[in-house]
Amino acid sequence: MAKQVRIGLVGYQFMGKAHSNAYRQLHRFFPELGVEPVLKALCGRSEEKVKAAAEKFGFESYETDYRKLVERDDIDIIDIVTPGDTHVEIAIAAAKAGKMVFCEKPLASSVDKVQVMCDAVNAAGVRNATCFNYRGVPAVKLAKQMIQDGVLGKIYHWRSVYLQDWIVDPNFPIVWRLQGDIAGSGSHGDLVAHSIDLAHYLVGDITEVCGMMDTFIKQRPILAESDDRLGGKASDEMGDVTVDDSSIFLARFANGAVGTFEATRMAAGRKNHNKFEINGSKGSIVFNMERMNELEYYNHDDPAELKGFRTIQTTDGCHPYTGNYWPIGHIIGYEHTFINLIHDMLQAWESGAEFHPDFNDGLKCQKVLDAVKSSSDTRTWKGV
Amino acid sequence: MAKQVRIGLVGYQFMGKAHSNAYRQLHRFFPELGVEPVLKALCGRSEEKVKAAAEKFGFESYETDYRKLVERDDIDIIDIVTPGDTHVEIAIAAAKAGKMVFCEKPLASSVDKVQVMCDAVNAAGVRNATCFNYRGVPAVKLAKQMIQDGVLGKIYHWRSVYLQDWIVDPNFPIVWRLQGDIAGSGSHGDLVAHSIDLAHYLVGDITEVCGMMDTFIKQRPILAESDDRLGGKASDEMGDVTVDDSSIFLARFANGAVGTFEATRMAAGRKNHNKFEINGSKGSIVFNMERMNELEYYNHDDPAELKGFRTIQTTDGCHPYTGNYWPIGHIIGYEHTFINLIHDMLQAWESGAEFHPDFNDGLKCQKVLDAVKSSSDTRTWKGV
Amino acid sequence: MAKQVRIGLVGYQFMGKAHSNAYRQLHRFFPELGVEPVLKALCGRSEEKVKAAAEKFGFESYETDYRKLVERDDIDIIDIVTPGDTHVEIAIAAAKAGKMVFCEKPLASSVDKVQVMCDAVNAAGVRNATCFNYRGVPAVKLAKQMIQDGVLGKIYHWRSVYLQDWIVDPNFPIVWRLQGDIAGSGSHGDLVAHSIDLAHYLVGDITEVCGMMDTFIKQRPILAESDDRLGGKASDEMGDVTVDDSSIFLARFANGAVGTFEATRMAAGRKNHNKFEINGSKGSIVFNMERMNELEYYNHDDPAELKGFRTIQTTDGCHPYTGNYWPIGHIIGYEHTFINLIHDMLQAWESGAEFHPDFNDGLKCQKVLDAVKSSSDTRTWKGV
Amino acid sequence: MAKQVRIGLVGYQFMGKAHSNAYRQLHRFFPELGVEPVLKALCGRSEEKVKAAAEKFGFESYETDYRKLVERDDIDIIDIVTPGDTHVEIAIAAAKAGKMVFCEKPLASSVDKVQVMCDAVNAAGVRNATCFNYRGVPAVKLAKQMIQDGVLGKIYHWRSVYLQDWIVDPNFPIVWRLQGDIAGSGSHGDLVAHSIDLAHYLVGDITEVCGMMDTFIKQRPILAESDDRLGGKASDEMGDVTVDDSSIFLARFANGAVGTFEATRMAAGRKNHNKFEINGSKGSIVFNMERMNELEYYNHDDPAELKGFRTIQTTDGCHPYTGNYWPIGHIIGYEHTFINLIHDMLQAWESGAEFHPDFNDGLKCQKVLDAVKSSSDTRTWKGV
Repeated sequence: MAKQVRIGLVGYQFMGKAHSNAYRQLHRFFPELGVEPVLKALCGRSEEKVKAAAEKFGFESYETDYRKLVERDDIDIIDIVTPGDTHVEIAIAAAKAGKMVFCEKPLASSVDKVQVMCDAVNAAGVRNATCFNYRGVPAVKLAKQMIQDGVLGKIYHWRSVYLQDWIVDPNFPIVWRLQGDIAGSGSHGDLVAHSIDLAHYLVGDITEVCGMMDTFIKQRPILAESDDRLGGKASDEMGDVTVDDSSIFLARFANGAVGTFEATRMAAGRKNHNKFEINGSKGSIVFNMERMNELEYYNHDDPAELKGFRTIQTTDGCHPYTGNYWPIGHIIGYEHTFINLIHDMLQAWESGAEFHPDFNDGLKCQKVLDAVKSSSDTRTWKGV
Repeated sequence: MAKQVRIGLVGYQFMGKAHSNAYRQLHRFFPELGVEPVLKALCGRSEEKVKAAAEKFGFESYETDYRKLVERDDIDIIDIVTPGDTHVEIAIAAAKAGKMVFCEKPLASSVDKVQVMCDAVNAAGVRNATCFNYRGVPAVKLAKQMIQDGVLGKIYHWRSVYLQDWIVDPNFPIVWRLQGDIAGSGSHGDLVAHSIDLAHYLVGDITEVCGMMDTFIKQRPILAESDDRLGGKASDEMGDVTVDDSSIFLARFANGAVGTFEATRMAAGRKNHNKFEINGSKGSIVFNMERMNELEYYNHDDPAELKGFRTIQTTDGCHPYTGNYWPIGHIIGYEHTFINLIHDMLQAWESGAEFHPDFNDGLKCQKVLDAVKSSSDTRTWKGV
Repeated sequence: MAKQVRIGLVGYQFMGKAHSNAYRQLHRFFPELGVEPVLKALCGRSEEKVKAAAEKFGFESYETDYRKLVERDDIDIIDIVTPGDTHVEIAIAAAKAGKMVFCEKPLASSVDKVQVMCDAVNAAGVRNATCFNYRGVPAVKLAKQMIQDGVLGKIYHWRSVYLQDWIVDPNFPIVWRLQGDIAGSGSHGDLVAHSIDLAHYLVGDITEVCGMMDTFIKQRPILAESDDRLGGKASDEMGDVTVDDSSIFLARFANGAVGTFEATRMAAGRKNHNKFEINGSKGSIVFNMERMNELEYYNHDDPAELKGFRTIQTTDGCHPYTGNYWPIGHIIGYEHTFINLIHDMLQAWESGAEFHPDFNDGLKCQKVLDAVKSSSDTRTWKGV
Repeated sequence: MAKQVRIGLVGYQFMGKAHSNAYRQLHRFFPELGVEPVLKALCGRSEEKVKAAAEKFGFESYETDYRKLVERDDIDIIDIVTPGDTHVEIAIAAAKAGKMVFCEKPLASSVDKVQVMCDAVNAAGVRNATCFNYRGVPAVKLAKQMIQDGVLGKIYHWRSVYLQDWIVDPNFPIVWRLQGDIAGSGSHGDLVAHSIDLAHYLVGDITEVCGMMDTFIKQRPILAESDDRLGGKASDEMGDVTVDDSSIFLARFANGAVGTFEATRMAAGRKNHNKFEINGSKGSIVFNMERMNELEYYNHDDPAELKGFRTIQTTDGCHPYTGNYWPIGHIIGYEHTFINLIHDMLQAWESGAEFHPDFNDGLKCQKVLDAVKSSSDTRTWKGV
């Protein structure tokens, strides 16, 4: 009989749907884990909406105040998927209430705020994790293993882009992700944050950065009504866009590697083009989230006339996670990255092992984000 | 409040896992459907195994005899995912008991047997469907719409391959899919059956065929123990492989198009390479299940200097099904093809609309399969 | 000082341009060959046109009657690139005159006619070659070496398509390649002939075939005036198309492999899509002429988690031919296939070594072409 | 009768071969141009080597002193393809002698030196051009036309990488391209220079940059003997590498676009991966020199459900240059970029039209190169 772990989820939009699904599905695909999440309570400010969402996602109950949620005895983990400006207070409350905390990235909009969150969980001594879900991609975990095993040799280059195009239309309205006071930043915290974490995970610590952040379309229609994907209806009135459209920077890593990072929401044709390439002395790898079931790999030591980038379909039983899903060649999707990450998190938390990405990894990421912002403002390199 | 439809599932291996998952997930992604499947009972001959599987998949109860299952009052749909040699008797029993019947492909191992199944559901007047799940791929449904709308013009060519490599190793044991008395055939009924249905769906009726079926490795180790993916442990003893390794044929369609079909399990490097290309007078499309979130499309009427195959990421809100999942660019996987197909099936059954693929579509597919087999035996063209 | 070999070329359209270019360039890229072609004379029936072409291509002189050309003492090799219906008489005349003969494919429109050509060169004891230029692609020669070295193991599958779309428009006029009395056949002799030769070269002898040949558009405008690419101007009058639009067949090889061949000029979006895939017990390869500087290769013996099709850029110094061109990654094009093939031909002829593809290889190809035609007519398998 | 233009070429290694080939081939493919280059004289310091090269490339004569070459009355154009440290003096001498000057990039190793070259050609009033040969790629010229026609709308992003891997092996010797006193720089002047020119050509003026240049392997074996590709034999002695392995920078364009540039010779698996992507308000394009016969294009205005990056095969008669080569789908290669560029240069020079890229374009490129170098040294943004 699997041990139950009871989830209290704060937030019910896109990420709420993704997290709920992961909890529901985890035990179905990983029954040997021995831990089964239970969707105990969903929390949101609008009773009407949170009630409907709770029913839709399969929660047993709902709350309209996170302060009540964190105090409930029947909750083990507080999972925070609200817009970024609310993470700090919820995480602190959860930590104080002794709950394990799982929070969406970016943890907050500045190092100071994230530091407060870290301090809170450390003071409370509670388990904590940041939802850098792309660590849960089989191909990414395979990449990690390859690098750890020395398959790529010494790393020289990191090269990432995270390209989207959902706001190319100048009449796309100012949804919350385009509002600085709520979202903190634009592609910066939303997209580059993922790339930074992947670089930390795969290459190592970033020591200094030099960046530029831009907003190409400075005014857009004010939002009339949001939908549950990423968009919404535009009103007739215009307003200021207070976040960046693109965030681009150069970086140096502690191990001597150099890197480029670019994120934008203005790359026509790119949908969720979260791509990176790593070049090392013994080989290279390339990953693109749009084809997340594949990892490209070049082995510098292959016979001279037979060298080339190979496309590994990371769906075999020997690949990370995928033996728990379907036979080889039968792909998984975006939602499974959450299942996989939560699997690793709960496995570690159960066994008492260290788990990454935790809040400290979120802090490390935020330090880079802040340094890039500062670099962009001052037009110089900044140490992290 | 969604209306409940109660599922009795017979079989609990790979396909049992896929179907169960689809039923569990359907309402989460398509709450507006108004129908919610309930996993009422799972059926299998081994009590130990079926009990464990029922728990794993989330069924309320289990049965060890399908005859008892079909008689239960609390079951609305009998879903059959057992090996092919048992479909006929179960489907007949279900029909006689007045249950709706959903059955995995191929329905049976010959036209005669499938005809009996069709007769049974017709006589009983029960709803029926065949699980050609690839009709539930967004890109495939988009292809269907494009062809219906005349986007490709008059169709000239169908060209499909369904390539796998899981038995390239001559020491891969004789699992049930390699046993003719259970599976009926090899790549023929397992893989080409899918391609035939897709061709029927997208291009139209096949009128005659000429084929060749081959078994390259005629003896393999007898199976010691199967696993729940596609493989198992080999014993020391050798046995005869009684199914085809590859099935290849030429075809003519009623509308004048010509086609090629090829399926094999001996194509090193191909994992689930279910690919087709259609060439018409106004354009072409290409689909590959390994990249199921993409559809390639060539528009013959594009400006001369800007013509080329484009890769459509079929993940936008305007594409079939995908608006119910994640934002654009966030891919879905193999399992969602079942959710989508079952969505369409239940939607049709609820509304009283005709649904395809039904048993008759399974029969149409079987007629082609039988004609190919006969053609291969007699080395001539065969009408369908 | 390189030894000169003097060329008399009959024909000056597309292929005349390609062959002339190859002769002119050969010595520049392969100076170590020790043989330098000299463009001695160009031959064509229209004095005005052949004179202009001779000047354009760089020939020293021209002739308007091939009978005069073959008698000239200052010619060593007669190269025939005229439309197919004239190959026989020219080749016979050349052979009788003791000239080495190099002829475009298909050699003629039937086995009987090709046999006469073979008899003529054999009787005369003259060197002879068929211009299956795709044997001169670096990736194809690499494939040959890999197969000879056992890299792919036992071959199970050959799968080729040769797809074009230049006659998809029903108003494309009846150029000579669409006239049966001149061209012999359509995609059959023009395209599938190449695939057959590649299959012979890479896999081995074809023993039996079963095919279907189709003409989708049976009437087209009569040609008013041809251009020097593949097209021309349409007149107002309609005429019958007397060649096939597509030629498709199944095949069995002497070594137990099975194959599919398809050629069509009606595949919208495909330009020169000459593609094949070979699956063997140890690996697979894929080649596409549109990306002729690449060869895809899957090694079944790679580590389990790192298996995948790799894209070899066949431009390294260690690859066939390419060390004589440019540094790695700097691609060559279509025209170099002729240079490479002629290089190998002249090298063999100089050294006294056997050379393939010779007329006998052209005959072998024609036997398959004829068998497919016969099979298509009789709707049964035909031995080759 | 075509007018002859007489070429004096200084240098005979890789680029000498490429330029000679282009001159020899130009008239064959572009007879309507009305200008035919004549390979009059080749110049190099070693009589033995230059004599052999002149014979190999097809020059009528040779010189061992460029000062004698520039004075010859039978020379119209001085073409300079020597290592970078000699460009200045040769170009000045040629200009003073009233010759038209065509020079390989980078023109020299600093803005000051290039300015001197510009002054010299301006003072002499002679025609001049810089060999940014990638402007001669059909796909690149198509891209230029598309952008000029507004097909991409307002440009937001330029994103280029120029990746090679020929020095990944730490034992690769210090050829002249790795010697700062001869080459000026490493990937900086050799590779990024190309990307900068393409960005100037396609997007517009770069106004400021921020870069980092790195040498990962600081010591390598001293060269024993060079070959005529890019490599050579290593001696036993080690020496300092005095050029950069990689050069990476951020850029701002005058029109508001932002860009990233990266060049490296340490990207395992990348051979001549000269790739760029441009994102505009109406669409995007992607080009990769390794597949130089293709241009990827995304049209933001395509119907919503049919949007996607399309791969244009730029080999049709309607595409730039390619109508002069082979039928559609029959690709050209690296060498043809030189033919095409020289075609445009001679066409402009004959007609009296302005031609780009001229020395001034080389200067513009050098200004960016110098600014990046300065930025890398000072760790700040630099205006161009």
